[in-house]
Amino acid sequence: VAALQGAISNIDPRLARVGQVIGPDRVVITGSEMETYLRDWSGDGRGQALAVLRPATVGEVQACVRVCAETGLGIVPQGGNTGLVSGTVAEDGRDIVVLSLSRLNRIRAVDSANLTIDADAGCTLQAIKDASEAAGCIFPLALGAQGSCQIGGNVATNAGGINVLRYGMARDLVLGVEVVLPDGRLWNGMSGLRKDNRGYDLKQLFIGSEGTLGIVTGVGLKLFPRPENIETAYVGAASFEAAMSLLAVARRACSDMITAFEVMGSECLAMARLVDPAVVPPVGQNTPVHIIFELSSSRLIDARLLIETVLSEALASGVAIDAVVAQSQAHARAFWAIREDLVEGQARRGYHVRTDVSVRLGDVPGFIAAARKYIETQWPAWISQAYGHAGDGNVHFNVLPPENLAESEARRLGADVTAGLYDIVRAFGGSISAEHGIGRSRRDVFWAGLEPVQRNMLAAIKSAIDPQGLMNPGCLIPLAKEKT
Amino acid sequence: VAALQGAISNIDPRLARVGQVIGPDRVVITGSEMETYLRDWSGDGRGQALAVLRPATVGEVQACVRVCAETGLGIVPQGGNTGLVSGTVAEDGRDIVVLSLSRLNRIRAVDSANLTIDADAGCTLQAIKDASEAAGCIFPLALGAQGSCQIGGNVATNAGGINVLRYGMARDLVLGVEVVLPDGRLWNGMSGLRKDNRGYDLKQLFIGSEGTLGIVTGVGLKLFPRPENIETAYVGAASFEAAMSLLAVARRACSDMITAFEVMGSECLAMARLVDPAVVPPVGQNTPVHIIFELSSSRLIDARLLIETVLSEALASGVAIDAVVAQSQAHARAFWAIREDLVEGQARRGYHVRTDVSVRLGDVPGFIAAARKYIETQWPAWISQAYGHAGDGNVHFNVLPPENLAESEARRLGADVTAGLYDIVRAFGGSISAEHGIGRSRRDVFWAGLEPVQRNMLAAIKSAIDPQGLMNPGCLIPLAKEKT
Repeated sequence: VAALQGAISNIDPRLARVGQVIGPDRVVITGSEMETYLRDWSGDGRGQALAVLRPATVGEVQACVRVCAETGLGIVPQGGNTGLVSGTVAEDGRDIVVLSLSRLNRIRAVDSANLTIDADAGCTLQAIKDASEAAGCIFPLALGAQGSCQIGGNVATNAGGINVLRYGMARDLVLGVEVVLPDGRLWNGMSGLRKDNRGYDLKQLFIGSEGTLGIVTGVGLKLFPRPENIETAYVGAASFEAAMSLLAVARRACSDMITAFEVMGSECLAMARLVDPAVVPPVGQNTPVHIIFELSSSRLIDARLLIETVLSEALASGVAIDAVVAQSQAHARAFWAIREDLVEGQARRGYHVRTDVSVRLGDVPGFIAAARKYIETQWPAWISQAYGHAGDGNVHFNVLPPENLAESEARRLGADVTAGLYDIVRAFGGSISAEHGIGRSRRDVFWAGLEPVQRNMLAAIKSAIDPQGLMNPGCLIPLAKEKT
Repeated sequence: VAALQGAISNIDPRLARVGQVIGPDRVVITGSEMETYLRDWSGDGRGQALAVLRPATVGEVQACVRVCAETGLGIVPQGGNTGLVSGTVAEDGRDIVVLSLSRLNRIRAVDSANLTIDADAGCTLQAIKDASEAAGCIFPLALGAQGSCQIGGNVATNAGGINVLRYGMARDLVLGVEVVLPDGRLWNGMSGLRKDNRGYDLKQLFIGSEGTLGIVTGVGLKLFPRPENIETAYVGAASFEAAMSLLAVARRACSDMITAFEVMGSECLAMARLVDPAVVPPVGQNTPVHIIFELSSSRLIDARLLIETVLSEALASGVAIDAVVAQSQAHARAFWAIREDLVEGQARRGYHVRTDVSVRLGDVPGFIAAARKYIETQWPAWISQAYGHAGDGNVHFNVLPPENLAESEARRLGADVTAGLYDIVRAFGGSISAEHGIGRSRRDVFWAGLEPVQRNMLAAIKSAIDPQGLMNPGCLIPLAKEKT
């Protein structure tokens, strides 16, 4: 212990104080051990930090934060590190530590009468989902990283995913948060109440603030009764216009039981085939738009009849040109595998332009058409990939560089490709971040696009809650702007 | 005009500047005209103000606010003035003006493809609902005051009502806000996007802040397809425990199609009979708990069969002891009339203790039992009334004073009755304001119950956004505490 403590002290005497309060074995300083904490899933850059702190309790988190506040160490709070916008990847590590919540991984309580779950921030999303299912309920947040991402990170970044259409973003699923504030004080904002109109809704500040206002250490979440019937259809449509018409018809016909409405341009199938060369989509693979459409219901509702009726009407009216309803869970999983494989396939291609755009529902086809035309005319050797959560107006319009292009050159040009896409987003009044957040990789374009009044409000809130600017410095708000 | 301008100037020279920018006829100073702006629906007190400003455009609101900011006039923003917690009733009117949004009453746009509506803050909730219906959609917020209350006030107070169980509070229905900030600048936070994860979600600050951070001048709201089938049942249960069991069973059985689940203790029927002496409830009137249970669905779902199946199972299992499904819209309206009449009947009784409590769903029966016992033992001449939005854990536990008690004495004792009820709420970990807000009438008890860390955060946000403390002074935050 003394040797460890000495090694820590050699790196930075401030770390020695942290080691004294949480134990030197919880202060990670060796390069190989630190490496996984310094890159997020995007692989877009490697961060810097003096050390990684791994407290095991809320009290230890407070103790770490107090030392940092007293000694001027910046803190990058980190959950599963599955973000895509470098929100956990500090640019300058001289006065920075990463604080990992991984050891805070206890399910605190499941209350099936209240339809709530309380948990430590470091529980994986999958652990939350499993504990909910064990109580006959569901926690509906669902996204690719759910086995690794942590619920505190989901809340801090207001995560989205495939079930937002029915259940909302993480924000909509949070009833309470417990937060260690930048001075080390604990705010217990956990009530389990479904309605509570007492003053400013402080939890909203922390949800989606990407760790820049405090460290979420605990969350209270809404659960829902587990649907007994799930029906999944794979539908082909002639265009994104037709796909959005199907969505409108389906929403009107199915009350609020549509749990997912994912669209994929046919060009995405090639990416799925990189992962599974044998993949054959359930509808003709040249069908311009592929749709995965899922309904969930209680046992008293015949979800199969409902989805078949909706699809029959859609085929009769020409809104859909082909449709297959999954006949088994395995069949449904095969549909979803195509959606998952296309993401994995893009990753295997290496660097690519990745966007996370939202526009008004009626603008989804127009945005995709404009973006495709831009790539075809301005970047003819690059390949568009249009897919996403169409039910929310959220399009992941990605662009693959030419295969023979060196990565460094692709990244350099990719920045220009992205800038052009963001111009199109702006022209549609859309958002450059529907669900992934701002982090560091979108920070400058975000900040440049703000009206002064918005910048002032963001900076005022940051200063009000984190006057020293020690919480996730450089994330979301430019470093030099924090104090203005 | 000159005479008007002179009269305004005589009241306060600062008002003359306002008169110059919005016209002196928009500055109300005569007592009789001002009176309706100085009392809210609770009738709990009369406010004070130098004048009532009635700007007609967003630009005029900005002009008023700029003058106030420059001359140190506090502003009480006011919508339909239907609040119940004196949020619009200033205690000290020497440096205060009321700013009414009534003239800003334009529906800006209905986008049925995007399922959104944009509107001026001064539109009544009913006008929003009507415009939505005309487009084949619904805006689901529903509450007793909907013909008079204004949507800006609904958003500023995070209004609740009878459909929260399915659709959430006002907060959950807001996609964007337009706000005049305390310095007169306009923040346009209207995007119409269903997913937007760009930085702090600033609109959340203004929702539920009761006009203490700025003036909401415009709102963008989510709409839903209009349900084609609505089924309403009136159910009798032997206890609140049984009622909550019915809720749990029904939620599990009906997916998310339950739009209302209102409970009333049988004692409330006497209040309904004050309004309609002929009222006969559809279930035995001595049935301990009366429930109005409503389902809404699209045309492809047989809502009648669904509600009948749920109720049959509930009757068979003993969770319900009697149930009637409305056979016509008129029949359903008669059910709802009982619920509305009991509120009106209490109002006719004059002053009564009015609470707006929430507890965890599983605690609803225990809370009501404890509150009733408290009244029976401590205030035996007073009469409990337990009803509310049980689906959200929101109980309006009201208490009628003895009929022969003078109002002033009833109000004096009522404060003690309320304090005792709030002790019980606290023991259950509940909220003293589920949906009505804090305003001025609950401010001191709210503030006294806060942890220092919460007070600091509230005060820090208030100071960050409204450093002069001119927005709705004394509402939600004690006057002396604003600058701490």
